[in-house]
Amino acid sequence: MPYRSTENTRSKKDAKRTAMMQAAVRVFAQKGYHSATIRDVVGEADVAIGTFYFYFPDKETLFVHLYDETAEFLLTALQQAIGSRTTLHKQMSSVVQTYVNLALYDPAIINLLLVGGVGAVASLHNKRAAFRERLINIYQRPLDDALDKGMIAEQDTRRSAEALAGAFDEVVLNLLAHPDPEMESKTIVQDMTMFALRAVAYNG
Amino acid sequence: MPYRSTENTRSKKDAKRTAMMQAAVRVFAQKGYHSATIRDVVGEADVAIGTFYFYFPDKETLFVHLYDETAEFLLTALQQAIGSRTTLHKQMSSVVQTYVNLALYDPAIINLLLVGGVGAVASLHNKRAAFRERLINIYQRPLDDALDKGMIAEQDTRRSAEALAGAFDEVVLNLLAHPDPEMESKTIVQDMTMFALRAVAYNG
Repeated sequence: MPYRSTENTRSKKDAKRTAMMQAAVRVFAQKGYHSATIRDVVGEADVAIGTFYFYFPDKETLFVHLYDETAEFLLTALQQAIGSRTTLHKQMSSVVQTYVNLALYDPAIINLLLVGGVGAVASLHNKRAAFRERLINIYQRPLDDALDKGMIAEQDTRRSAEALAGAFDEVVLNLLAHPDPEMESKTIVQDMTMFALRAVAYNG
Repeated sequence: MPYRSTENTRSKKDAKRTAMMQAAVRVFAQKGYHSATIRDVVGEADVAIGTFYFYFPDKETLFVHLYDETAEFLLTALQQAIGSRTTLHKQMSSVVQTYVNLALYDPAIINLLLVGGVGAVASLHNKRAAFRERLINIYQRPLDDALDKGMIAEQDTRRSAEALAGAFDEVVLNLLAHPDPEMESKTIVQDMTMFALRAVAYNG
């Protein structure tokens, strides 16, 4: 599971919290938010029900924490993928590869962030908006750099970043719906890197 | 309201059904699916509560009908926008313009299809997948035509269509979150038409 608590996970207590969070990702993905019960989560995590209530007052609070920490995990990974490269070509290739790897490794986190749950919990609406905003900013920064260096055409980089965010999400969702995602993933990185570079008129 | 019943709406009874559907779009958009009550819907539609139960056994059934008919409405409009044009340039420009017009005219339908509710009602998961599939097919057909005519580069047109579907959705969602969507919309059609044509390497 790529899911990591953003807090210290070395103590036994934190290990139990992490186990419940990991179990909850799986349970919500399988059953959907409303059908999933606290009993399902503690059963999957193999902890006592009292342990659940030591950490979370209710299912909604668990779910909101889960959304927050999963979003943080994905955004950090994508940011690092871009930050570790210097040309737009390598940045796009690296970020798509990272996104695809995460999706194949743990489809449940993609389902959690992109499809499930948001409509289920009213308090997630603002969190969803904040997640999308940060995701778009991650894509906009390398476009702004490339524009400064004259490597892409004049354009509204904010809008291009929105379009790339939506494009990558949809392609990854379709990958996971494919009967053989591993096989299908082989061409995605090259296809989407080309798509993105052409879309912003990269001249590198 | 762009919402139209796909059934005959001429009789008084159908008018009441349509009024409830239109009211429900607004109520779900304002309150979210779970907070919205049947009483809210009949209050907004100004019909008796018995009228609701004449048409729908419960809130979930109403919501599923609403999703189906709203999806049908949007898909038909986008399909017509593409079908009425012959070059990829005009097809892309026309479909983005139509999408933006619909979103500005009735933001609630975009919220219903793209954000709200899907996580709230388990039975919508398959419907969401079917809606996405039809949407992607609408974008793929003109790409296949353009590829046959040698107007775009060799590519996996299915994947390009997924990417365009995601890109247009995200841009439209961001438009609606903008403080002045009407003003902001003026540049979207040209920006996204250019983005799409470049992304598929259109040579027209």
